[in-house]
Amino acid sequence: MKIGLVGLGKMGLNLTKNMINKGYEVYTFDKDSQRIRMSEKVGAIGCISLKNLCKKLKENRILWIMVPSGNPTEDVLNELKNYLDKKDIIIEAGNSNYKDSMRRFENFQNIDIDYLDAGISGGQDGALNGICAMIGGKESTFKKVERIFKDISIENGYLYTGKSGSGHFSKMIHNGIEYGMLQAIGEGFEILEKSDFDYDMESLADLWNHGSVIRGWLMELTKNVFNKDKNLDTIKGVIDANGEGLWTAQTALEMGIPAPVITASVMVRHRSKQEDTYSGKLIASLRNEFGGHSIIENK
Amino acid sequence: MKIGLVGLGKMGLNLTKNMINKGYEVYTFDKDSQRIRMSEKVGAIGCISLKNLCKKLKENRILWIMVPSGNPTEDVLNELKNYLDKKDIIIEAGNSNYKDSMRRFENFQNIDIDYLDAGISGGQDGALNGICAMIGGKESTFKKVERIFKDISIENGYLYTGKSGSGHFSKMIHNGIEYGMLQAIGEGFEILEKSDFDYDMESLADLWNHGSVIRGWLMELTKNVFNKDKNLDTIKGVIDANGEGLWTAQTALEMGIPAPVITASVMVRHRSKQEDTYSGKLIASLRNEFGGHSIIENK
Repeated sequence: MKIGLVGLGKMGLNLTKNMINKGYEVYTFDKDSQRIRMSEKVGAIGCISLKNLCKKLKENRILWIMVPSGNPTEDVLNELKNYLDKKDIIIEAGNSNYKDSMRRFENFQNIDIDYLDAGISGGQDGALNGICAMIGGKESTFKKVERIFKDISIENGYLYTGKSGSGHFSKMIHNGIEYGMLQAIGEGFEILEKSDFDYDMESLADLWNHGSVIRGWLMELTKNVFNKDKNLDTIKGVIDANGEGLWTAQTALEMGIPAPVITASVMVRHRSKQEDTYSGKLIASLRNEFGGHSIIENK
Repeated sequence: MKIGLVGLGKMGLNLTKNMINKGYEVYTFDKDSQRIRMSEKVGAIGCISLKNLCKKLKENRILWIMVPSGNPTEDVLNELKNYLDKKDIIIEAGNSNYKDSMRRFENFQNIDIDYLDAGISGGQDGALNGICAMIGGKESTFKKVERIFKDISIENGYLYTGKSGSGHFSKMIHNGIEYGMLQAIGEGFEILEKSDFDYDMESLADLWNHGSVIRGWLMELTKNVFNKDKNLDTIKGVIDANGEGLWTAQTALEMGIPAPVITASVMVRHRSKQEDTYSGKLIASLRNEFGGHSIIENK
């Protein structure tokens, strides 16, 4: 079976290997030609452009789009419109905002191209050995490509979640939950580290994977982290974000649902990127104004 | 090997079975004689009082204390002082505050009785089939009873965490992390439930246990919950708490460590127990004062 795969980042390249291992003929494209060559080394058929990829796939095309959300995804989809034919199927598997996915579904629906929004979890390891997928869109479209999801997912690792948008919406929530879980783990270990006790963090994280209530993959990764860097002194505590946590918090606020933990997790990430804060300067100044409390000068 | 087990609640009774399955002679006591009879039915030797239990154990006593933290634990320990001899060993395995555990360790140290603080995770199922234990106190004491922990824990499910207090401190942090994780899961599923999509919560929780980043025991329990009560309409959203989350938040505040997620989780539990709020009444009144915004009368 032929499939086109656009976007050969860490996830895309591992997915390519995964698909090839399952017997697919994978036609790849990435704007970085280096990545195309890497995909060829693992058995893919590299294409020099999106147009070239669509030409090689000929007909009844199935395209798996795995590029960063926002403009990169938008650009790829806009260009693809020129090369696709009716009844082709797009599986957009990036971390797109579900509102974008619903809009794109409508646009492609209008030109009779099937469109699925697929949220993919499991990290790079999952991409290689078995993903966990939430798939939204028309059920008839899903049925046509279900075989692919079955092949590249971990056993029981894919679910048709309903109408267009539901795949990326549920992936957004999955990531929101992940933000809260990560933050809880981070806070807990920071308190342990600064306590008067002398814990071996790796041993404790390992213990907590053996029978504790909080056992799970994130705690397994916590063990691995401390195994590689016992005191976490090789990196800075700056936490990047891709948008899904922010969208979860925004969605909760819009819907009138209190989500303090997920929202706080997003704010912690924002704070982690600030060297100093304007609000902190203002508050310290105000304390100095009313109480004469000391301030630290900026040298 | 003989062991005394005081406190036959859900955890204590399952631990009794666990120990008996591993060949221990378990002498049990609970202030509720009904529970003592239940323990006898599974093979324990019931005792009519703490004094009676200590008498039957004769010498080189090992006592596992598994009663609610705070006064119940304090009362049992105070009474036990009258019946114990030098070199007896107390394993206090409730969810005690680590500060209490350090104080009790000192008190028992003064009368030459060995004292360990053991944090136990894994729930009722763990108590029966294999606990996850964090153990603080003198290492020499730990070595004397390590065999017991090895026998009743899941494989690799126990850890000597260091000096007195470290067992219960790490269990406190474990539970603090658990609070944050639970709250993140709760928030995420509430957003899913109130969204325009029509998710099957059980299927989604089940999916997320197959290859997703947030897979783990709490997500497995989430699946079970939705399997038993599809729409959660048989219970109220009131969340009880036993103290460890509060202590984690308090500890973080005292230590000057920002722990917004764990702290917010505690506040959410407090809010869940309020039918209405005084602060809400005040804020609604103030909006009415300055903006004429409508208020809801209390009928």
